[in-house]
Amino acid sequence: MPNTLQILIKQFNYEGGFVLKLEQLGRHILVEFYNCDCDILGDHEVIEEYMCEAARISNATIVTSCFHKFNPWGVSGAVIIQESHLTIHTWPEYGYASVDLFTCGDSVNPWVGFNYLEKMLKSERSESTEIARGMIEKIKNFSHKKLDNITHKPM
Amino acid sequence: MPNTLQILIKQFNYEGGFVLKLEQLGRHILVEFYNCDCDILGDHEVIEEYMCEAARISNATIVTSCFHKFNPWGVSGAVIIQESHLTIHTWPEYGYASVDLFTCGDSVNPWVGFNYLEKMLKSERSESTEIARGMIEKIKNFSHKKLDNITHKPM
Repeated sequence: MPNTLQILIKQFNYEGGFVLKLEQLGRHILVEFYNCDCDILGDHEVIEEYMCEAARISNATIVTSCFHKFNPWGVSGAVIIQESHLTIHTWPEYGYASVDLFTCGDSVNPWVGFNYLEKMLKSERSESTEIARGMIEKIKNFSHKKLDNITHKPM
Repeated sequence: MPNTLQILIKQFNYEGGFVLKLEQLGRHILVEFYNCDCDILGDHEVIEEYMCEAARISNATIVTSCFHKFNPWGVSGAVIIQESHLTIHTWPEYGYASVDLFTCGDSVNPWVGFNYLEKMLKSERSESTEIARGMIEKIKNFSHKKLDNITHKPM
């Protein structure tokens, strides 16, 4: 498997179709989880457990993490993984949580973590945006050095 | 000052102009820093120091942080602030860093942190995207409860 993430986009024309292959270091999913379980959003131990499990089942490897419980409510935290990070900020009083899943390489699937968190937070509605991070062509184009074989972060 | 972040967008029409006021819990700036100083990107102590200072000069309050140095190179880390988070992932070998500045409330200005990091990482080129997080109208609209006076995370 290649170490960079390859995104395949199928584009159609009148003659048939062709495939455009884009390469990027990582993919970053920004999620708004609405109408979650308020008690869960306020429990910092449970939130930390869910975030770490979301990383693991996405096939990521956790290297460190840090969480903070706010007074009177709310949790913020980050799980740093070999493949980048997961973060969360919760507003239990509104049933709302803001989650990021940023992963590099093609051995990790952040959408597995998304599905898990949506279920565990009992979010009735969510919205997400996926952003490409570290486009290979841009890094190569802007660099003063000749860069070959760009890969995601070494372990 | 209001506790939600108010974004003013001036829209012009043929008759003159009007102001559209949008409210959101936070603003999230996703940054690609190209052509940075490779030695700085590889120094995890310096990166942690810069990230914490970027939070402070943006007027944020740090509550916890976690950083990891990769072998043979690269740094990943997060600074959790009362107002959300700052994260970084560096690829010293490509002079590239991926940075997020996510802040809530209107007492913090993430662009101050952006400017500081651009200077300290000696990035010759950068690209950024600002994403609204926690749109107040959506949280209210989707909620089953009547929500009034939505504000950013309590301290």
